Amino acid sequence: MQMPVTVLGLGSMGAALAGAFLDAGHPTTVWNRTAARATPLADRGAHPSATVVDAVTASPLVITCLTTFDATMKTLEPAAAALGGRILVTLNSGAPAEARRTAAWAAEHGIRFLGGAIKNVPAAVGLPDTLLYYGGDRAAFDEVEPALRALGGDTVHLGDEPDLAALYEMAVGGTLLPALVGFFQGAAAVQARGLEASTLVPYTVKWLEMIASVLPVFAGEIDSGDYSRPMSSVGIFAAGMEAEREFATEAGVDGAWLAPLHDLLRRAIQEGHGEHSVAALTEVLKTPA
Amino acid sequence: MQMPVTVLGLGSMGAALAGAFLDAGHPTTVWNRTAARATPLADRGAHPSATVVDAVTASPLVITCLTTFDATMKTLEPAAAALGGRILVTLNSGAPAEARRTAAWAAEHGIRFLGGAIKNVPAAVGLPDTLLYYGGDRAAFDEVEPALRALGGDTVHLGDEPDLAALYEMAVGGTLLPALVGFFQGAAAVQARGLEASTLVPYTVKWLEMIASVLPVFAGEIDSGDYSRPMSSVGIFAAGMEAEREFATEAGVDGAWLAPLHDLLRRAIQEGHGEHSVAALTEVLKTPA
Ligand SMILES: NC(=O)c1ccc[n+]([C@@H]2O[C@H](COP(=O)([O-])OP(=O)(O)OC[C@H]3O[C@@H](n4cnc5c(N)ncnc54)[C@H](OP(=O)(O)O)[C@@H]3O)[C@@H](O)[C@H]2O)c1
Ligand SMILES: NC(=O)c1ccc[n+]([C@@H]2O[C@H](COP(=O)([O-])OP(=O)(O)OC[C@H]3O[C@@H](n4cnc5c(N)ncnc54)[C@H](OP(=O)(O)O)[C@@H]3O)[C@@H](O)[C@H]2O)c1
Repeated sequence: MQMPVTVLGLGSMGAALAGAFLDAGHPTTVWNRTAARATPLADRGAHPSATVVDAVTASPLVITCLTTFDATMKTLEPAAAALGGRILVTLNSGAPAEARRTAAWAAEHGIRFLGGAIKNVPAAVGLPDTLLYYGGDRAAFDEVEPALRALGGDTVHLGDEPDLAALYEMAVGGTLLPALVGFFQGAAAVQARGLEASTLVPYTVKWLEMIASVLPVFAGEIDSGDYSRPMSSVGIFAAGMEAEREFATEAGVDGAWLAPLHDLLRRAIQEGHGEHSVAALTEVLKTPA
Repeated sequence: MQMPVTVLGLGSMGAALAGAFLDAGHPTTVWNRTAARATPLADRGAHPSATVVDAVTASPLVITCLTTFDATMKTLEPAAAALGGRILVTLNSGAPAEARRTAAWAAEHGIRFLGGAIKNVPAAVGLPDTLLYYGGDRAAFDEVEPALRALGGDTVHLGDEPDLAALYEMAVGGTLLPALVGFFQGAAAVQARGLEASTLVPYTVKWLEMIASVLPVFAGEIDSGDYSRPMSSVGIFAAGMEAEREFATEAGVDGAWLAPLHDLLRRAIQEGHGEHSVAALTEVLKTPA
């Protein structure tokens, strides 16, 4: 028999997690603050619990997927005793400091803790290529790894520190909002010309592939601290600033979001990085303005 | 025999373009302001010209790859008469307005004009998957398309307007700097923990694939103007702002570049988009603050 699991929090992501456990044949207990959200999962064979204590008691592995670590702690507090000895895995987003706080609380109550993160959308849950990573108690990870694999085939233990998943999630995730705003600005610009935003998609997909292909070079420069043989220099980016501002204006777009990025380029040049790789911006970010 | 081509500007990108023409067997004439840069290409069989007029006269197809449209115009002015009746293709970056200005100048002198852009690095020039796009005179494009294909197999004519390549290049390219700064911040954060920036690369590559996979949904929302069934809401992004600021602080990173992105999220909520798709930021960008 598959390991029984409990999922607390049945929002977009939590519901997908519970569904993946059901699909993989795990006896699945579910709880949500707004109880009605459990119904579609109950129809698929999940066991809804009326209280968090009941839900937690049902399984050796408890997964939470609430909005924040704060909401998670508040929800778990009354069930601290029931959680003792069980394995708790958080899968919400949040800062590393909050993951550490949650881990400390778990340790206090004898709860075995893994801080996890899922770097994908709910529709990707359960697919062989979907990445989830975890930090914390290695022995606990080994015990529940087969169950965790139901959530995504690319299941990684990053190390013993319980905040590593939060660290990597935020370090990796930091590209999302800025990249999307860049895309939205482009969409506004083509719309201003009577063209469809959808025409941008195939070109942007290729562009993201190009960006992905150059990251190893930039990471190598950052790790070595040697920015002196640029594939793409700070100066080349700086030369484009004027055109970027004109473009925003022509597109009728508020270009204010670009200003601090341009300030970074200017500071990099002031600090002598004009002919260096654009990855030298990492050093500028590390220096207070 | 392959069509003779002339390449003006032999920087990182121009040299790659000339090299690709040579590899494809085109008689290739080259010119660069700093003449020494032509030597490695001459060794591979290119014909260096001492003057722009001589270079232009050698081929029916003239490609320029200087830093800006300004530099391009200044360089071409003295050769305007010699360019008459020939096909001129610019492959530098620049704002659409500057491409239009160059096209107007070309029209005045009876020069057939295509404004092009290459969305990749010099090392990708000549590969079957490499994207180059062009806007302008369709008949001219059809004549030189076989030659242009030597530069990259994914050769696209966007339409008759000569600034379309500049428009798309800037619309697509707007994701690069912000996405890179996001990555550099992540790199600084893992370094602050004694980990290598390179450990981020495989996760970030997957993340960029995830971003690419959701763009069609966002583009569809932007084209329809219907943001009411969010896959990922403004509110979910706004809920992460606090953690993003804490993360920057913990990483010892100057998080100032995030402030205007967070302002966009706050304005979106004020304008009633809190429960809407994050793609609704496009509407906020279109509205002056
Ligand atoms: N959706 C995604 O694409 C995605 C991707 C990666 C990571 N994540 C992360 O996964 C987590 C959940 O996201 P989601 O998309 O599932 O969010 P969601 O659809 O908004 O669901 C939020 C869940 O949290 C519960 N909740 C919030 N505050 C609570 C409280 N004080 N007490 C008890 N329950 C509370 C909600 O319960 P009610 O139903 O009672 O409101 C609901 O179950 C977030 O940290 C998010 O960043 C999401
Ligand atoms: N490199 C890339 O990854 C890449 C990718 C896509 C697009 N592009 C675009 O391609 C264009 C060229 O980039 P690049 O990387 O080849 O730049 P680069 O290596 O800096 O070369 C610049 C070229 O422009 C010439 N030039 C500049 N100002 C001039 C002037 N006033 N008169 C005559 N020649 C002048 C330079 O001549 P000298 O040798 O005499 O200085 C050199 O040939 C830019 O618009 C760039 O944005 C580059």
